[in-house]
Amino acid sequence: MWIAELSSRTEVPVATIKYYLREGLLPAGQAVGATRARYDESHVRRLRLIRALVGAGGLSLARVRGVLAEVDEESSELHEVLGAAHGALIPDAVPASPESLQRVDQLVANHGWRVHSGSPDRALLAGALDALEKLGYHLDDELLESYAAAAKQVADADVAHLPADDRARTVEAAVVVTALGGPVLLALRRLAQQDASARRYGSAHFDK
Amino acid sequence: MWIAELSSRTEVPVATIKYYLREGLLPAGQAVGATRARYDESHVRRLRLIRALVGAGGLSLARVRGVLAEVDEESSELHEVLGAAHGALIPDAVPASPESLQRVDQLVANHGWRVHSGSPDRALLAGALDALEKLGYHLDDELLESYAAAAKQVADADVAHLPADDRARTVEAAVVVTALGGPVLLALRRLAQQDASARRYGSAHFDK
Repeated sequence: MWIAELSSRTEVPVATIKYYLREGLLPAGQAVGATRARYDESHVRRLRLIRALVGAGGLSLARVRGVLAEVDEESSELHEVLGAAHGALIPDAVPASPESLQRVDQLVANHGWRVHSGSPDRALLAGALDALEKLGYHLDDELLESYAAAAKQVADADVAHLPADDRARTVEAAVVVTALGGPVLLALRRLAQQDASARRYGSAHFDK
Repeated sequence: MWIAELSSRTEVPVATIKYYLREGLLPAGQAVGATRARYDESHVRRLRLIRALVGAGGLSLARVRGVLAEVDEESSELHEVLGAAHGALIPDAVPASPESLQRVDQLVANHGWRVHSGSPDRALLAGALDALEKLGYHLDDELLESYAAAAKQVADADVAHLPADDRARTVEAAVVVTALGGPVLLALRRLAQQDASARRYGSAHFDK
């Protein structure tokens, strides 16, 4: 298909598609003459993925580029790629205290979780605990365990629902579910917080 | 204290503090002469909150301003303020389909959750479900229920741990726990996903 059809199929403006092509986020089409190129279903799929990661996923284009590089990486072992894609998905880690890092390592060990040695999530988690601590909010062990149990429940369901038919689809699905499942989980948490707050603090101003 | 001490207490550079003052994120100190002002513990606390929301919370300054305005709002009922602070914390909602909006309303009704009628979380959740759907990933009822159950578990623990001593502290705590607890929950989910993926797809390249 020509770029105009690619645009109407995906609802992404032609100028934006050209920008993604220039930035290397979208692979070039098959050149037909000097100025035209033909695109296929892989371009439709890739454009939809970019838009979902930027839109509902809230990722910057720089971060989307990193994630796509991991999705396209074919040399390494499947599970390694999932870990690397995780690394590209998350915000830059903030410096964390040795105490919080140790607390995170202990939690991971207590649960027997096998995690990537280079996973930035440990530092990210420790940094968030530090930030809470600095503000005088100690996330005590009981509350942290509630978080861990809930996280495990969601993660098990996530991974059980991944397709197992082919490698590229599995990696893409893992990235999509991690990136877009995050906003789903946090929105549900806020809705449930509103209900818990209504029960604890009471109010007549509700919809029901 | 003078601005230099405020800076050293909070580890925020003087230039950044002046920027926050100009932008109205930080209330002015008590003027002493034409060019100097004295600051107190409330400024220390507010600066730490701004830094935590920007740093570990990942919020833009514009969004931090909205959140602080809600924290400072003293006229409305406590639970209303918590809802409004939620609204300021979340990303701009994406347009959602009527089908997904109805699915979200049904989920909220099934759980008997009392949520704010104007809560943008419903549209945000529906938009994330749409984005997944567009990419061919239907979050089926079973998986969505796993998310909702996990979200409820965390939300109940969050609200049970809020201080109840005074209104300003409760609102600030709700904002902090919602904003910084999000990264904690998502980091734990990614770590647990790595473990679930290791169990499902196997690999020798692990730490433990």
